[in-house]
Amino acid sequence: MASSSPSDHKATIIDGKAIAQTVRSEIADEVRHLSQQYGKVPGLAVVIVGNRKDSQSYVSMKRKACAEVGIKSFDLNLPEDVSQAELIAKVHELNANPDVHGILVQLPLPKHINEEKVLSEISIEKDVDGFHPLNIGKLAMKGRHPLFLPCTPKSKKRLLNIDSAVKLEIYMFCWKSSCFNHDHFLQGCLELLSRSGISIRGKKAVVVGRSNIVGLPVSLLLLKEDATVTIVHSHSSEPEKTVREADIVIAAAGQPMMIKGSWIKPGAAVIDVGTNAVDDQTRKSGYRLVGDVDFHEACKVAGWITPVPGGVGPMTVAMLLKNTLEGAKSTIVQ
Amino acid sequence: MASSSPSDHKATIIDGKAIAQTVRSEIADEVRHLSQQYGKVPGLAVVIVGNRKDSQSYVSMKRKACAEVGIKSFDLNLPEDVSQAELIAKVHELNANPDVHGILVQLPLPKHINEEKVLSEISIEKDVDGFHPLNIGKLAMKGRHPLFLPCTPKSKKRLLNIDSAVKLEIYMFCWKSSCFNHDHFLQGCLELLSRSGISIRGKKAVVVGRSNIVGLPVSLLLLKEDATVTIVHSHSSEPEKTVREADIVIAAAGQPMMIKGSWIKPGAAVIDVGTNAVDDQTRKSGYRLVGDVDFHEACKVAGWITPVPGGVGPMTVAMLLKNTLEGAKSTIVQ
Repeated sequence: MASSSPSDHKATIIDGKAIAQTVRSEIADEVRHLSQQYGKVPGLAVVIVGNRKDSQSYVSMKRKACAEVGIKSFDLNLPEDVSQAELIAKVHELNANPDVHGILVQLPLPKHINEEKVLSEISIEKDVDGFHPLNIGKLAMKGRHPLFLPCTPKSKKRLLNIDSAVKLEIYMFCWKSSCFNHDHFLQGCLELLSRSGISIRGKKAVVVGRSNIVGLPVSLLLLKEDATVTIVHSHSSEPEKTVREADIVIAAAGQPMMIKGSWIKPGAAVIDVGTNAVDDQTRKSGYRLVGDVDFHEACKVAGWITPVPGGVGPMTVAMLLKNTLEGAKSTIVQ
Repeated sequence: MASSSPSDHKATIIDGKAIAQTVRSEIADEVRHLSQQYGKVPGLAVVIVGNRKDSQSYVSMKRKACAEVGIKSFDLNLPEDVSQAELIAKVHELNANPDVHGILVQLPLPKHINEEKVLSEISIEKDVDGFHPLNIGKLAMKGRHPLFLPCTPKSKKRLLNIDSAVKLEIYMFCWKSSCFNHDHFLQGCLELLSRSGISIRGKKAVVVGRSNIVGLPVSLLLLKEDATVTIVHSHSSEPEKTVREADIVIAAAGQPMMIKGSWIKPGAAVIDVGTNAVDDQTRKSGYRLVGDVDFHEACKVAGWITPVPGGVGPMTVAMLLKNTLEGAKSTIVQ
């Protein structure tokens, strides 16, 4: 084993923050071009119901991100007790507004409102949150399976003293499936691979974890990109053996540092989707975020690896902006 | 290699016809019990629009199968030029009819009718064709991707001189995705495994083929049953190596006898979903049906194998009957 001398090796770190910044600059360029050429800019409407602090913060981050790239924000804050009919009427108004190219209804909605019904009222061309057919499948499944998991009170409390640099990722971690859009997150995974020059076609990809919200859809996306995809989960025998055969590893198990360096095939690309809080008394907050991969060990073996935080997380809002831009281009550029 | 002496080995043939017959007998027993205990029997309504010969024949087979197990048939034959509104009104009537527990609208519908719209009008409790959430996801995807492939004129012509024993399977082959329900077909695959005493949990399953209508949904079903699932396809490198690691192989590539004996792990369970017509001048029809697996070679290595025809095919109608029974039980037995 000493012959391979893995300790000398150092994986290329896939810097999600830097890549997201590149994506945003490209979007800003395209928006500027649209504005100069056609006198129009993309518009993104975000509808919030009620006063959930987490929704408000997340939406304000979205608004800021829009402003940075020149996308116009249309924000609608409706009271907690808004009726479903009123909310749907507002969605219809946004559907009809030619300056709005993307509509996003922030989840979760109050209990008296049927989320599925409301989301289905968003016109398909403006459904930036549901751009991908997979999303619709997931949405359709929602009525039958618990798709949205509640945020744990513990992690909510921890939000009180957060480190601003990883704010968004902590939000995403806490909300899990509640308010942030997983499709953008998943698109982010693929974008990180392609921006790092890693081709997917024909490669062996192993996805660790089979959640409806991450593991399954990311598997389908990889399959669409022509990878040979294996899904490994808690009932798999010899998961480490299967992972060790992968050219591309997507870690989405939700288990802190579960995937050890010895699980990784030398030179593999490792995308760590996991975001787990572990106790850390050296931090003011009392914890830190780690991925599903043992980063330090994996660095010595992998060819590429995403850090947590700073990997997939920062790509999420960038992908939302990209979807809004694409939606706008398809109507503005005829 | 001679040491393993595979030529002495003979796989257990999974007899789909016999298993389907067992399932049907069990259904008949349960229907008799419902009738005696509650004075009610399950009812299945089949709606056909127009005079497509293939739809008519398939539906008449369904009707016969219902009669055999004591399920009451409610058949509606609507003219080719029925309006969408009239068709939907009929669906609503069936939704309201307490004697109808399953509603099946035979596809394809004429071009002037929006299939997705009509299918979405079937009340969820009676949607025997869409019992599984996966189906809804597929349905949702339909608007964006071509899900239903047309039957080739060649195979249609060949239907004229068919061998009655494999009639249903030839129909299914010709229609591919047009009129028969793939969900029942897929449920059939899993039922064949469980009836043969083959457990899925923790096993390595390899699905060859990634079609929206068979490969993908069967992968998701296997995953739900806790298999470690790998999907292999035309862009996979070394597919034979991957298949050789599988405890369970689902062949759904649509390539006649593509999977050779040497691809199979000794003792593996092989479910052959492929149904391909190959020229055979020794037959009156001029062709015969073969699977995606080289049956004779695979028999010498596999532990279990389904023949084509006579494997998965016969299970399809049995699973439809089973779904109808389950639907009826949930309303009759309170």
